[in-house]
Amino acid sequence: MNSLDSNNQPAFHLGVDGLLVAIAQDATTNKVLMVAWMNAESFQETVETGFATYYSRSRKRLWRKGEESGHRQQVVGLYLHCDQDTILLSVKQTGAACHEGYASCFFRKYEHGKLTIIADRLVDPKDVY
Amino acid sequence: MNSLDSNNQPAFHLGVDGLLVAIAQDATTNKVLMVAWMNAESFQETVETGFATYYSRSRKRLWRKGEESGHRQQVVGLYLHCDQDTILLSVKQTGAACHEGYASCFFRKYEHGKLTIIADRLVDPKDVY
Repeated sequence: MNSLDSNNQPAFHLGVDGLLVAIAQDATTNKVLMVAWMNAESFQETVETGFATYYSRSRKRLWRKGEESGHRQQVVGLYLHCDQDTILLSVKQTGAACHEGYASCFFRKYEHGKLTIIADRLVDPKDVY
Repeated sequence: MNSLDSNNQPAFHLGVDGLLVAIAQDATTNKVLMVAWMNAESFQETVETGFATYYSRSRKRLWRKGEESGHRQQVVGLYLHCDQDTILLSVKQTGAACHEGYASCFFRKYEHGKLTIIADRLVDPKDVY
């Protein structure tokens, strides 16, 4: 299985938009913090800097996680999905991963046809953005 | 925040292909097991049956996880990403989540420009597919 490309990156199976799914998981608790997207350039920058850099589909540019909020993610492990279209980042999260101020973006549970907020806000988004 | 649609499903922000990212996480260990896709129908079936049903992009049909292998996922929790384009499933996994026979699809670590297999195979794929 030759799983690296000529740039020594994993031979990603990029989506039609050239993007990978990227999942950030807390290195200590294994809590899933957020899901975003990466292109080859953001993956490269993540590897080189040791901090998570994603690709923002709305802003159409690299997104250095925490560039505004300071809520950066130090990457301690990178894992490749079997079909090579998803990256799992094990990270040490500073502050809140979610732009809504929660530790995790998965702060709502769906149960019995309802959504319930299951976490407390760590920070007020107005204070960080 | 009105986050439910007329069918009492979360008001998903589906991708251009009508799909959500779906992440399965082990309910006990929090290990991330796999990433797949869901459409509204597969989400509905997951809720109704209590077992993970995805949408297979390659087969272009619903994919009842474990339908061939028996490696089903009993869903114990469903969590919605802040931007409503991703679902996190907390599951009790029977057997191996990965079609390559590993407990998790993230069985390769990327480090120092190399991919290393970091897990043992639980089952031989030839025995289950």
